[in-house]
Amino acid sequence: MKVHVELSLIPLGVGVSLSPYIAECERVFEKAGLRHDLHADGTTVVGEWDEVFRAVEECHRRVHDQSVPRIYSTLKVSTRTDRDQQPEERVESVRRKLAEQEGES
Amino acid sequence: MKVHVELSLIPLGVGVSLSPYIAECERVFEKAGLRHDLHADGTTVVGEWDEVFRAVEECHRRVHDQSVPRIYSTLKVSTRTDRDQQPEERVESVRRKLAEQEGES
Amino acid sequence: MKVHVELSLIPLGVGVSLSPYIAECERVFEKAGLRHDLHADGTTVVGEWDEVFRAVEECHRRVHDQSVPRIYSTLKVSTRTDRDQQPEERVESVRRKLAEQEGES
Amino acid sequence: MKVHVELSLIPLGVGVSLSPYIAECERVFEKAGLRHDLHADGTTVVGEWDEVFRAVEECHRRVHDQSVPRIYSTLKVSTRTDRDQQPEERVESVRRKLAEQEGES
Repeated sequence: MKVHVELSLIPLGVGVSLSPYIAECERVFEKAGLRHDLHADGTTVVGEWDEVFRAVEECHRRVHDQSVPRIYSTLKVSTRTDRDQQPEERVESVRRKLAEQEGES
Repeated sequence: MKVHVELSLIPLGVGVSLSPYIAECERVFEKAGLRHDLHADGTTVVGEWDEVFRAVEECHRRVHDQSVPRIYSTLKVSTRTDRDQQPEERVESVRRKLAEQEGES
Repeated sequence: MKVHVELSLIPLGVGVSLSPYIAECERVFEKAGLRHDLHADGTTVVGEWDEVFRAVEECHRRVHDQSVPRIYSTLKVSTRTDRDQQPEERVESVRRKLAEQEGES
Repeated sequence: MKVHVELSLIPLGVGVSLSPYIAECERVFEKAGLRHDLHADGTTVVGEWDEVFRAVEECHRRVHDQSVPRIYSTLKVSTRTDRDQQPEERVESVRRKLAEQEGES
């Protein structure tokens, strides 16, 4: 089953800077050969269910290895059987709606 | 790696009632032999990473099988290496703090 | 507009213990006279939109006052116009589905 | 208090297409004069606490007005007192970490 996941990882018991840990996860997704798009509130990762969640687990492991005792991640996990959709299509679809309605008014 | 997950599953393209789908997931967790606690905003599931995410995948599959074309789940995924913690200990820990501070005032 | 919110607050830049901060929020909701139910993954708060979000803001302020430089909260925010629903009805609705299907099999 | 919010709105009881509703919210944020950045998993909105949550409420109202009986939004709500940070700085900070480490290896 294909899955679209947005991962936001929060390490606890360390400082306020999240970027070293998020960078670590980016490298995990890159090595796993998974499409991943970083944005201000997380990383969008798409792929087969098993591969994606194995990569997320690897990401937790590596962050723990950086002396992080506790991790709290929020994941949005989306699956659909009606059709295949790429992350950028979601954004384009909204932009199209906005353009149409501007044209109407 | 042990994981504590809170799953909130939202089926799209069906009615406003979520309970038939959440019930389906409860059965999946029950059959998988995973500890699961239902509350008003989701289900807390604890267990080994692989088993928990295999069960969540099975839950998505079964909900799709009930003619749901699109699913949007929110997961809070928590791991810790410092110690083992049961879900009820989280609540007790807060209640203890509240009781202590009442005692102080 | 009535709103049902699940709040999970994560303080950054402090230790791994979340309970002192969650206890602070419990007190804020209590003082605000809002119904609030603590569970292992957050607190369910119900009430009028303005009151609930004013209380969540107050909760962020008080946690910052406890020398927390950065806070990351996850909120599930639910509104419905079809009918009024109490938090416990959500759980009962799932339990009823589970009982019905056991009866059928 | 300044707040950084990521909003992901899910309408229930309608079809699988989310874009008309997300477009409605984009217009609300635009009219409110709030900075908003659309991505594949939600919209990042930054501004003063009251203004942001008033806009999110308006967004829920307008989506209900489009015959949506139930809405389920996930919000990530971030505040910090140590310094001001723009959404793009979060991404740049991770990219810098990735570049540094590549340089090291």
